[in-house]
Amino acid sequence: MKRRVFSGARPTGRQHIGNYLGAIQNYVALQDEYDCIYCIVDIHALTSLEDTGELQRNIREMVLDWLAVGLDPGKSILFVQSQVPEVMELYTLLGMITPLSWLLRVPTFKEKVKLQPHNVNYGLVGYPVLMTADIVLYKAEVIPVGEDQLPHLELAREITRRFNSSFGDIFPEPEAKLTSFPLVLGLDGKSKMSKQAGNDIEIALSDKETVKRVMTALTDPARRYRNDPGHPDICNIYRLHGYFSPRQTDDIAARCRSAKIGCVDCKQLLAEAINIALKPIRERRAALATEPQYIADVLTDGARRARVIARKTLKEVKQKMGLI
Amino acid sequence: MKRRVFSGARPTGRQHIGNYLGAIQNYVALQDEYDCIYCIVDIHALTSLEDTGELQRNIREMVLDWLAVGLDPGKSILFVQSQVPEVMELYTLLGMITPLSWLLRVPTFKEKVKLQPHNVNYGLVGYPVLMTADIVLYKAEVIPVGEDQLPHLELAREITRRFNSSFGDIFPEPEAKLTSFPLVLGLDGKSKMSKQAGNDIEIALSDKETVKRVMTALTDPARRYRNDPGHPDICNIYRLHGYFSPRQTDDIAARCRSAKIGCVDCKQLLAEAINIALKPIRERRAALATEPQYIADVLTDGARRARVIARKTLKEVKQKMGLI
Repeated sequence: MKRRVFSGARPTGRQHIGNYLGAIQNYVALQDEYDCIYCIVDIHALTSLEDTGELQRNIREMVLDWLAVGLDPGKSILFVQSQVPEVMELYTLLGMITPLSWLLRVPTFKEKVKLQPHNVNYGLVGYPVLMTADIVLYKAEVIPVGEDQLPHLELAREITRRFNSSFGDIFPEPEAKLTSFPLVLGLDGKSKMSKQAGNDIEIALSDKETVKRVMTALTDPARRYRNDPGHPDICNIYRLHGYFSPRQTDDIAARCRSAKIGCVDCKQLLAEAINIALKPIRERRAALATEPQYIADVLTDGARRARVIARKTLKEVKQKMGLI
Repeated sequence: MKRRVFSGARPTGRQHIGNYLGAIQNYVALQDEYDCIYCIVDIHALTSLEDTGELQRNIREMVLDWLAVGLDPGKSILFVQSQVPEVMELYTLLGMITPLSWLLRVPTFKEKVKLQPHNVNYGLVGYPVLMTADIVLYKAEVIPVGEDQLPHLELAREITRRFNSSFGDIFPEPEAKLTSFPLVLGLDGKSKMSKQAGNDIEIALSDKETVKRVMTALTDPARRYRNDPGHPDICNIYRLHGYFSPRQTDDIAARCRSAKIGCVDCKQLLAEAINIALKPIRERRAALATEPQYIADVLTDGARRARVIARKTLKEVKQKMGLI
């Protein structure tokens, strides 16, 4: 029997190539070896989101990208967190055995307090409790995480152990599957690619839009004139070539260093490489986008399958806690 | 159309005459004028309860007392909180708009921290959020409270206003219906009658047990010998006579002051008065206790009726929040 993977991602709308090279490709790769559950965590999003007007659209756009890249509802369960309300029950119950002090000392909580000092809400403090509920509701054993998320998973393990020791072993302790996601920098060449930073390239762009977008990118900051020799090692465009033109990087580096190509040419090459790599994905995405009912059905069916597991776990939890 | 009352009580098991003279008689009295929803708040209990082994038994015993005293499932909805899981969804969602600072400054939270310093859990901090969810899930307008609970209701009103102003008016602001519950002291004559203090007289006692229990009570502390004159004004037994022998209090006071009756006689009279007052209640209780299926059915039916209202409210909430 395959081990169960759980992972959740916030509904951030159209995904960019940072998401693609990081989380989504990894999700696709895990599908054969594991029994995968992938969740769009809309309730988590509410801990920060004050305007929820775009939530439904963001969910749909994200699912389109996921499916286009290769997440397969025939292999994995894809669903929206709030459509399995059992997770909120389990969150409530796990909260009864989670010390407040554990939550207040989480580093990301402290960061969030700085980011949204006007909105330090109760749900924000309980984020790790909800994350634990997400995982253990499905008795997931394997959680793909980047190094930065290890402290969260450790806290989830602590909450799990505490529940097990209070009410009897129900939950397996989730294990981290450490995945080294590439740190994809954005078009500014400085910060991580993200929608908020406005430095991203969306998977869903057209070829033309991609060219236009890539052309705005910062290149080798040490190369001032077209005839100056370039420095691929400090150029983010060169780094992006590494993902999309892996067989041509040596050649590009040589031509850059010898000033045989300029930055504009180099970005043109990158945009073309991105367009070639994403072509089949974009075609699938466009086809899927014409079938909104299919997308809705995928999520409904995913939630239905997730609930079968969730209800079983929750019943066990309630029995152990003396609630039934 | 009748206005809706909501009240919740923790599953403390067999009720005592303090509960009877306070909350339960009031619950019964409200049934005709209001559309009443009475909830046994088992999830609230988990914020303090570490051993939940007696939870189900305590729920059954409490319902027996409620029904015996006159709560009428034909008029009111009686149910167990966790059987309407929608309340945990609403608690989760309301938590997203409730500032942590509001919760940390609640006086009863600070008291609880002193009482259970080893168990300051996340759920304990969120107590007022769950209480608000209890109330607004049913769009209750009228909340019977004692003066000591007014700050809680004020916080529930604040959370309600904040939700309404963030997502649009859904909930009526619940109003306090201030009820002056008699402060019934326990058999020690010092502290409020309660199960924990071990100074209570349970409704469900037999006549004999009642006599035995009342005989252990502290009486007039200033009367040392049988022939000393008594001081009804400082005697808790005299106060209890006020509830159970209201037409004889003048006579009892006179006979006490003149030392015509001793404390033992006086307690015997009280026990008899209690037994007479509780006789019909105890008979109904004994009859109901032989029908466990009926008790289960009352609660199942109550939860079913409560869920009809709860689901409707929650759907509205999710729509307003952009979750559906």
